[in-house]
Amino acid sequence: MGRLTQRRRVLRVTRSDDGAASRQRGDVLAAEEPLELRMRGESFTVTMRTPGHDFELSAGFLVSEGILVRPEQLLALRYCAGTDEAGNQTYNVVEADLDPAAAALAVRARRQVMTTSACGICGTTSIDAVEKSLPHPSGAPQLQMDVRTLLEMPDRLRAGQQLFDKTGGVHAAGLFSAEGELLCVREDVGRHNAVDKVVGRSFLDGDLPLAGTALQVSGRASFELVQKAAMAGIELLSAVGAPSSLAADLADTAGITLAGFSRGKSVNVYTHPGRIMGLT
Amino acid sequence: MGRLTQRRRVLRVTRSDDGAASRQRGDVLAAEEPLELRMRGESFTVTMRTPGHDFELSAGFLVSEGILVRPEQLLALRYCAGTDEAGNQTYNVVEADLDPAAAALAVRARRQVMTTSACGICGTTSIDAVEKSLPHPSGAPQLQMDVRTLLEMPDRLRAGQQLFDKTGGVHAAGLFSAEGELLCVREDVGRHNAVDKVVGRSFLDGDLPLAGTALQVSGRASFELVQKAAMAGIELLSAVGAPSSLAADLADTAGITLAGFSRGKSVNVYTHPGRIMGLT
Repeated sequence: MGRLTQRRRVLRVTRSDDGAASRQRGDVLAAEEPLELRMRGESFTVTMRTPGHDFELSAGFLVSEGILVRPEQLLALRYCAGTDEAGNQTYNVVEADLDPAAAALAVRARRQVMTTSACGICGTTSIDAVEKSLPHPSGAPQLQMDVRTLLEMPDRLRAGQQLFDKTGGVHAAGLFSAEGELLCVREDVGRHNAVDKVVGRSFLDGDLPLAGTALQVSGRASFELVQKAAMAGIELLSAVGAPSSLAADLADTAGITLAGFSRGKSVNVYTHPGRIMGLT
Repeated sequence: MGRLTQRRRVLRVTRSDDGAASRQRGDVLAAEEPLELRMRGESFTVTMRTPGHDFELSAGFLVSEGILVRPEQLLALRYCAGTDEAGNQTYNVVEADLDPAAAALAVRARRQVMTTSACGICGTTSIDAVEKSLPHPSGAPQLQMDVRTLLEMPDRLRAGQQLFDKTGGVHAAGLFSAEGELLCVREDVGRHNAVDKVVGRSFLDGDLPLAGTALQVSGRASFELVQKAAMAGIELLSAVGAPSSLAADLADTAGITLAGFSRGKSVNVYTHPGRIMGLT
């Protein structure tokens, strides 16, 4: 079975009089892995989830989609018997066997997000898929950001938000220059949407890839947010909340500096700290 | 253009010595509406978003998906000219015109979440779609919950979480009895997944519909979370964070009691407060 957490080395940065002090320490991240749900061997949906309770997740998802109503409609749930390239069972593909009526509903509702041929889908598969689709070759890092600028980004983002003060209920994404100038801020009930809006603005302005920029987000850092940053060529992603394990893995591979728990006085840097200046 | 916020009447509940005091007041919710992205008249994806910057959202989404790389691949973005039943332009359907190579990529990546025939997709369309698919007739309310129990659910959920203490980075969903007993708790990097896992557990146990129960979630209340509660027959959904406008609208229609900003000492009740006892 998949593990619920992953241990990583992290650079813990704390504000000091003359900049910021940093030290290496261990940190525990919530595990994130893809789960593919299949019916009759065909992919129905792929969701990024914390491993565990996968049959519940599969059944509950099908209930939420209106496909399963009564227990007898679900004939069986089982893990696909395949393995990844290293020969390990990934426990990341669940096959659902439904009665004919529910199966017919499922065919109509199919959500095909991403297709894999083998049952060995895993975090590495997902990272490889992103890496292969990266449109901008990741050249030499162009971003150099002072640690104080990094620490100030959450406050500057917050100051740039308009909806949050009114509702307390929206996420935000802000694109920053190396000097900490807020280039674009967007808010949305969906945190992925806020990032899509920032990237879309830059695309429409002909500004992709966004080399030399940093993105601050109000929530946590998931795999999908790192993916969006990577696709846009953003060099640094900073989250107010925690990153997931797969977010850190992808940032590592894609050459992105990933910061988390950025709270003004301190921040954790999970990958590629070389872009951050002024650490003592 | 869609509005960014929606004003609603809310029952503001504050803990007091002999239970809880309540009063009506106005509240401002972040607007949530579906956005359908189409290409050549066919649905590509539907996302729930805060209206505004929709062309940026559409372009950014296509960049994140690896479909758009260079500005010249995007020939045009425009709102679909259709209207809803009342004859109003909803500005909820965007048509993207891509060059042939990008269009071919899009066909392969199509995410068909939900299909609408007219361009008048709006919150009401989404609510109707959920209402039509509700598997359990919503009979007379069975849940009666003391307001003190409602106020204690976030702390009890937190106490039942195992991963959060380690990682600070997971969402949780907890199913409660009317008396405040924590029946099932699940954690996940995705808040939707945590709810799916709880619902799936109940489904596998043959316990659907979940009449007489309440669900506490650690984050905000979106349209999709209310939908999941409604599909499972849960009577009360309580969120630590803010609800969106469409979440409140759906809860209203589906007969679900929706509580938000539940912080131990106070809570806002947005819909169907009749299930909550002990208010003064």
